[in-house]
Amino acid sequence: MELLFGAAYYAEYMPYKRTDKDLDMMKAAGMNVIRIAESTWSTLEPAEGTYNFEYIDEMIKAAKARDMKVIVGTPTYAIPAWLYQKDNTVMVVHEGKHLPYGARQIMDITNPTYREAAEKVIRKLMEHVAGYPNVIGYQIDNETKHYDISGEKVEEMFKKYLMDKFGTVDKFNSAYVLNYWSNSIGSWDNLPPVEGTINGGLATEFGKFKRSIAADFLKWQRAIVDEYRRPDQFVTHNFDFEWKVGEGEKGIPHSFGVQPGINHYEASDAVTIAGTDIYHPTQDNLTGAEIAYCGDSIRSLKDDNYLLLETEAQAFKEWTPYPGQLRLQAYSHIANGAVSVLYWNWHSIHNSFETYWKGVLSHDLESNPVYEEASIIGKEFSKYGEIIGGIKKYNKVALIVDNQSMDAFKWFGISDTCSYTDIVRWMYDSLYELNIECDVIDVHKCEKISLNRYETIITPALYSASQNLIDKLKVFVQDGGRLISSFKSFFANENLTVYPDKQPHGLTDVFGISYNQFTEPGTATIDGEEIRYWAELVNVKEAEIFAKYEHKYWGEYAGITYNKFVKGDAWYIGCFTSKEELKKIYKKAFSISEDDPKWPLIVRSGINPSGEKLHFIFNYSQNEESIICKYEKAMNIFDEKTYAKGDKISLRDYNLVILKEV
Amino acid sequence: MELLFGAAYYAEYMPYKRTDKDLDMMKAAGMNVIRIAESTWSTLEPAEGTYNFEYIDEMIKAAKARDMKVIVGTPTYAIPAWLYQKDNTVMVVHEGKHLPYGARQIMDITNPTYREAAEKVIRKLMEHVAGYPNVIGYQIDNETKHYDISGEKVEEMFKKYLMDKFGTVDKFNSAYVLNYWSNSIGSWDNLPPVEGTINGGLATEFGKFKRSIAADFLKWQRAIVDEYRRPDQFVTHNFDFEWKVGEGEKGIPHSFGVQPGINHYEASDAVTIAGTDIYHPTQDNLTGAEIAYCGDSIRSLKDDNYLLLETEAQAFKEWTPYPGQLRLQAYSHIANGAVSVLYWNWHSIHNSFETYWKGVLSHDLESNPVYEEASIIGKEFSKYGEIIGGIKKYNKVALIVDNQSMDAFKWFGISDTCSYTDIVRWMYDSLYELNIECDVIDVHKCEKISLNRYETIITPALYSASQNLIDKLKVFVQDGGRLISSFKSFFANENLTVYPDKQPHGLTDVFGISYNQFTEPGTATIDGEEIRYWAELVNVKEAEIFAKYEHKYWGEYAGITYNKFVKGDAWYIGCFTSKEELKKIYKKAFSISEDDPKWPLIVRSGINPSGEKLHFIFNYSQNEESIICKYEKAMNIFDEKTYAKGDKISLRDYNLVILKEV
Amino acid sequence: MELLFGAAYYAEYMPYKRTDKDLDMMKAAGMNVIRIAESTWSTLEPAEGTYNFEYIDEMIKAAKARDMKVIVGTPTYAIPAWLYQKDNTVMVVHEGKHLPYGARQIMDITNPTYREAAEKVIRKLMEHVAGYPNVIGYQIDNETKHYDISGEKVEEMFKKYLMDKFGTVDKFNSAYVLNYWSNSIGSWDNLPPVEGTINGGLATEFGKFKRSIAADFLKWQRAIVDEYRRPDQFVTHNFDFEWKVGEGEKGIPHSFGVQPGINHYEASDAVTIAGTDIYHPTQDNLTGAEIAYCGDSIRSLKDDNYLLLETEAQAFKEWTPYPGQLRLQAYSHIANGAVSVLYWNWHSIHNSFETYWKGVLSHDLESNPVYEEASIIGKEFSKYGEIIGGIKKYNKVALIVDNQSMDAFKWFGISDTCSYTDIVRWMYDSLYELNIECDVIDVHKCEKISLNRYETIITPALYSASQNLIDKLKVFVQDGGRLISSFKSFFANENLTVYPDKQPHGLTDVFGISYNQFTEPGTATIDGEEIRYWAELVNVKEAEIFAKYEHKYWGEYAGITYNKFVKGDAWYIGCFTSKEELKKIYKKAFSISEDDPKWPLIVRSGINPSGEKLHFIFNYSQNEESIICKYEKAMNIFDEKTYAKGDKISLRDYNLVILKEV
Repeated sequence: MELLFGAAYYAEYMPYKRTDKDLDMMKAAGMNVIRIAESTWSTLEPAEGTYNFEYIDEMIKAAKARDMKVIVGTPTYAIPAWLYQKDNTVMVVHEGKHLPYGARQIMDITNPTYREAAEKVIRKLMEHVAGYPNVIGYQIDNETKHYDISGEKVEEMFKKYLMDKFGTVDKFNSAYVLNYWSNSIGSWDNLPPVEGTINGGLATEFGKFKRSIAADFLKWQRAIVDEYRRPDQFVTHNFDFEWKVGEGEKGIPHSFGVQPGINHYEASDAVTIAGTDIYHPTQDNLTGAEIAYCGDSIRSLKDDNYLLLETEAQAFKEWTPYPGQLRLQAYSHIANGAVSVLYWNWHSIHNSFETYWKGVLSHDLESNPVYEEASIIGKEFSKYGEIIGGIKKYNKVALIVDNQSMDAFKWFGISDTCSYTDIVRWMYDSLYELNIECDVIDVHKCEKISLNRYETIITPALYSASQNLIDKLKVFVQDGGRLISSFKSFFANENLTVYPDKQPHGLTDVFGISYNQFTEPGTATIDGEEIRYWAELVNVKEAEIFAKYEHKYWGEYAGITYNKFVKGDAWYIGCFTSKEELKKIYKKAFSISEDDPKWPLIVRSGINPSGEKLHFIFNYSQNEESIICKYEKAMNIFDEKTYAKGDKISLRDYNLVILKEV
Repeated sequence: MELLFGAAYYAEYMPYKRTDKDLDMMKAAGMNVIRIAESTWSTLEPAEGTYNFEYIDEMIKAAKARDMKVIVGTPTYAIPAWLYQKDNTVMVVHEGKHLPYGARQIMDITNPTYREAAEKVIRKLMEHVAGYPNVIGYQIDNETKHYDISGEKVEEMFKKYLMDKFGTVDKFNSAYVLNYWSNSIGSWDNLPPVEGTINGGLATEFGKFKRSIAADFLKWQRAIVDEYRRPDQFVTHNFDFEWKVGEGEKGIPHSFGVQPGINHYEASDAVTIAGTDIYHPTQDNLTGAEIAYCGDSIRSLKDDNYLLLETEAQAFKEWTPYPGQLRLQAYSHIANGAVSVLYWNWHSIHNSFETYWKGVLSHDLESNPVYEEASIIGKEFSKYGEIIGGIKKYNKVALIVDNQSMDAFKWFGISDTCSYTDIVRWMYDSLYELNIECDVIDVHKCEKISLNRYETIITPALYSASQNLIDKLKVFVQDGGRLISSFKSFFANENLTVYPDKQPHGLTDVFGISYNQFTEPGTATIDGEEIRYWAELVNVKEAEIFAKYEHKYWGEYAGITYNKFVKGDAWYIGCFTSKEELKKIYKKAFSISEDDPKWPLIVRSGINPSGEKLHFIFNYSQNEESIICKYEKAMNIFDEKTYAKGDKISLRDYNLVILKEV
Repeated sequence: MELLFGAAYYAEYMPYKRTDKDLDMMKAAGMNVIRIAESTWSTLEPAEGTYNFEYIDEMIKAAKARDMKVIVGTPTYAIPAWLYQKDNTVMVVHEGKHLPYGARQIMDITNPTYREAAEKVIRKLMEHVAGYPNVIGYQIDNETKHYDISGEKVEEMFKKYLMDKFGTVDKFNSAYVLNYWSNSIGSWDNLPPVEGTINGGLATEFGKFKRSIAADFLKWQRAIVDEYRRPDQFVTHNFDFEWKVGEGEKGIPHSFGVQPGINHYEASDAVTIAGTDIYHPTQDNLTGAEIAYCGDSIRSLKDDNYLLLETEAQAFKEWTPYPGQLRLQAYSHIANGAVSVLYWNWHSIHNSFETYWKGVLSHDLESNPVYEEASIIGKEFSKYGEIIGGIKKYNKVALIVDNQSMDAFKWFGISDTCSYTDIVRWMYDSLYELNIECDVIDVHKCEKISLNRYETIITPALYSASQNLIDKLKVFVQDGGRLISSFKSFFANENLTVYPDKQPHGLTDVFGISYNQFTEPGTATIDGEEIRYWAELVNVKEAEIFAKYEHKYWGEYAGITYNKFVKGDAWYIGCFTSKEELKKIYKKAFSISEDDPKWPLIVRSGINPSGEKLHFIFNYSQNEESIICKYEKAMNIFDEKTYAKGDKISLRDYNLVILKEV
């Protein structure tokens, strides 16, 4: 399967005309695709009803002339000034005021003026481009979120939603314990704006509602695009992740965890193939963990290959890649199931907000070390694409993530600095560093699918869990599965109402423990190591104790336990340990030995469309490392050297081999 | 005197009906009182004019059936949504906008719609409950403050207040030096809103005015309640303290210092018995200092016993008590003059804002170690209440606190991180740790009472002091009293206008010193120890120098001095030292020897209604400690063991003895 | 030339009448000037149209009686309440709201009501005071800035400005690459408010426009004053500097760098003699660097002597001077070209915002160590004024500063904590510490004047540079000049559009290098020392490498280079080094030896009106230091001791000598 390799291109931002020069440079670098048009509404429609397709036509034709493909984006995530001038209320309301015009992604996506104008420009664009043979697909909007929509209109929509959901005010009042601080209502007419609520359950329900608004917006765009596109053209979206610095991590924000502004799983119905952008630390901080985490999440949306629509070439000064890193990163995406690597963007921009979000080319628009390394990748992708393109995964481990638990942590978390996703990444990264591949699945998917395709399910801080899900997990263990759950899992229901019985609710027999107290760890340790932010005082029933707290007063309680239950087993981790402590649990649970490769040596495997077994082996360090071949016979596709089981394979710094079992 | 022991109870928050089970558990734990109804307006009056007394009746009757008492709160500190919908302006105005509905304690307590509705619901409630024999008293509102009321209406009220106070604009202008930066006015019509003022004096006067609004609100409620209550029923209020983390302290906020939002002394006219809530650090950070400081403050309001209406059972994860701490705390309150210990609350709540402010019971609503320890306390209180209940204090030391000086520090403080109350607590805690008991009295009380009941008066940073008060303190020393004053005392008058002569104003002869310069301490030390934030360059006249600064350029100035003046003496502490340095001063002033008990051994004494002398001895440490009996003959009431002077008394970690002189 | 020595005086703030006593004390201290009336509008005009000159007349007459001079300020920078009440819109708009009345410097200086009232009061004041013989000059307004003016009115003004500047929307769109994120406009009618822009170029243009508003305001006042003043009366303004704590510096804010709110050079047309206030760290942190930097900047505005209109006497607790410091500071100003030293202020104020910004006198209004030291200065100034007053400088080094590059750094800087002016001060202070005197010139002056009066030009982070300026600097080097440029110089044009070719734009041949990549330094070092925030990966063409990066991957790139170009030479510093590293460069470039004096010994030289060569030698340390005389023969004016070349001159801590070459 041919891999897509290319970059976003914005002819309209260029300081002078250089389309031909740029496409020649791309072609020379082995690039075969460009992504255009998203965010260019003011160029496409400079005045209401006046359209300019020149820059789009030129790009598509110039690409065609070089046998390059084009992905066309709808331009709707940045609005033109004329639309703002026509109706100032297209801007989203924050704190009672419409935001000022200027930035992208701050319009009210429910606003009728916006919707009408967006529909018109999408239709015009689709009419114009759908026929081009080298247009292979469409990206609808870009990094869509609900943009913290607020104000009277959305409050009114939310009220209707609550009336539909609960019917009576009594059910509504009691679902959220609203009589607390006199918040209960006597009639729906008395429902106050949710804006000021101090009820975490209601507030997170509003978050869920807003995420649905974002997903519905994409489905609406999909329906329009479907009226025009050819059957061979895909529809994708550029799903992005929570952007932050991990707790305790230094450096600048990057793709990190679960996206709070839209539910990816809910929105994935709007696309034929999932797409994403992944931006991650590099230089001394390159680990590959974000590439793996985000890729596993996006692949799991549709259990299928996905498009990497954006990743960094140079981006910020913190991310100027060391020699070898760009290539290592590109293959890491492919090893994860991506079928494309597209940079954002081709050229650096000479003014405005992202002047220092640099592209493949620097501002001088000439060759440079990054372009040179991209050229190597491009040539290799052409050569090896048929072998490595489109690999599939059949992982036996699933890690469950949940927007509602994420929002719940803002109300009921464990510290001001540690968010839900820090806990997700603690559990995920520990798997990653031990080379245990997993799917990352949304809780809604988990409720829908049969779980018996997995051997192990991991729940990081699944605070909000429906009775239905809890029952399903119990059956999963009964039937032989393994459940590994962290503290604060299964504490509250889907409305964030705490289950009024022993914790972890509904699973005390599965884990063989219970608790009704918890504490700041203070000086308590586990295995001699510090505990961070949270320690449940676990009373053991049938479980084995993996670790007790070391502390004058809490020493009688367990911190980590293991329990056999019917045909399966279950681990409970009652406190926030170091990754090293967590990896001890994983090593025991997954029978990992000291000889097995671990980060900075990363092994990712898959089966290509020809049914061949591939193993990507990455050296994520600045030193030469070696690994012992554990396959009977395997060939490095780059130099066609063959290894037998037990052979030593050496890798230079930031280098890789791809073994094909033969 | 029977001690009250119990908890706040909210039947209306419960996930299912369990009044009987809960009251049985309470009764079994020795509890004899519940506190109900505050904050339940929306349950009591679900729609305007529609009342529901079911949950109240049920509670009072169920309590009666178990011979338990009930304190009923007026529900006015959290408003129902219908009241907000009726008139959005009931919400307080901050920065020009009415706050959104949701939280408690954010209404405009001067708003006529609010007042009218509040009066109606209070009257209905009183009519209904006043006749119940086991209703022993009422709590009016809860933790009332001015809620930073602002906006046109309150500005208009403040203008009238200023006109009354000053009469002419000339007097007003000159009182605050308003011609500075052209702020003087030619006529009252030109008075601008105080909101933007840069005049610290005027701004703090507005603070004082707002505190009066809050006090007046409570007096207004008292008058309504008085129309209904029986003579045997008390009226109390739950006075709370400034809530913060002490300077340099780690951990979470807690009851700390002087309440900025209402003047407790002014408001205490509204109650027949003072009440309070005290929340404090625990686990490794339990010192008992907050229990002592807050208790001494509340007891001093009326020189009488007080109700502890709320304190923590489990509360936050940081405060899950170690074994023994709950009991130690309960007796510490009693040792201070409290006649009740009520937890907030009985049960943990299953949703909304305080889900993690846990009660005696955890969310599972079953027994747990905290409940078990409460049961011990309950039984002991029943047994020993007649001995230890209602003790009186006749302290010889008074520490003066002042809202005006507190506000002044926001304008004219010594650092961004150190507030007025940090200085108060530095002076108070050093007393506490040396077992010097004191009254904590508001400056307004100090101006009113005869000071000759005290031997020593301590003024921490009494920045704003009227000429009258200064004169009174001078007479106090002349007559044989001891004055111990910190830096920044007596600097400005009641309008924050600095006295234009030598400092400390009016008392240079009393202290035997003066100064007109001060400095950031930099590398200067006192006794080899760091000075924090502030050092006055004290010129000595007649005083003895207790300590000079150690510094190349400031070495010629004194930092701490002592002076005999007529029949008394006076200490002046010109810089912010460590507590250890301050304790050296106290030790000298109060003739405390190395053998005297000091924290973590805490001794608090009093005389019970039978005239017996009691000494509570607490071990606030995790180790066993011992103390030498200094009373001729005394009996530990728990085991009835008798000690003679010089006998050693051992105490296990977090344990206590109560000695009764015999 | 007689030096002016005195203080600001505000009779209207005084707690009681003491004009005569104060002026007697001033006179006794050798003071010969007072500065009055700025900010006293509400005293001067207590109600609209009602004037009160009593306090002004009294001061001028009392000064006259003692043969003292008076500088009269227009009172317009703080408005009276009646003006606010007349028209609330006189307050500046921030975030859509007019600021509340109270502080100074928050009016809308374009508001017609304000302008009309200001004009009236200025005319009345001028009419009244112009005839007094001892009124020597006027200060128009005070520390004027644009006060972040915003809102519809200024947006409309800015729109007209843009239309004038660009003519067509196409030129406008392309100048700022506005089609990025759909910000381009189809017609001027569609121009959205700049308030929300995400375009750094447009935003900084708005900054430039607002600075012009401030300069125009001063020119408008000057024109009014000119109608009344006598020819012998000067017009000045109190230019102030950016007020901040330097990056990495501890302590409190002070005069630091380029003023963002007005362009001093543009505004200097409004005065006949430049004036300034300089506030700086003292005690252990006194370096003299701010006195030098700010003085060099103000002197360079008109290449002439200037008035020091305000500096600290005691000010804050952090700045209470050590013995000797006040005198050292006073002479440091004179050594820089100042012809006056005026303190702010004479007396401390007893209430309002600046109660703790203390004057020469403390609040007790009596003598104190600072007054005593001022008295020494006053007497010496009388005695030596004719020798040291009015010295001129003919510096061979110029350092270029630029408001546009400063603003650009807020969008395109190198870290959140390090601003443009931190880089300016890094380059300036390193000169200062090596006793290399320089002019500090605004880039607009640099574009206008002939550069051949200088031997060396230094550009700290001159990010925004017009093609014209770049060409001029190239010619400067061609003709034999030396250019020393830091990283991020010459990167973008005057609209902040990055030059789309090799960097540093237009000067790659001059420097003999180019670069198109840069990075966070990470662990890279230069000469073993840490690099902060920024490292350009410099490719060397003809240049000599002064230092390469030490780093596994960046080691192939240069960090600092030196190049001969035609008749001149050029240094390029591609990374933010320590001051020590930068001083190594300066030492080489300026041939400074280890024997030359360096900070804390500071040497500043000049030529007095009699043509005598003076050398001020300051000891900025707490230790006795010595220096070797490098002049053939020179006399210390204080003790008339004569030194020959090679003689050792000793200086006590915080002391100075002034050598006159003889």
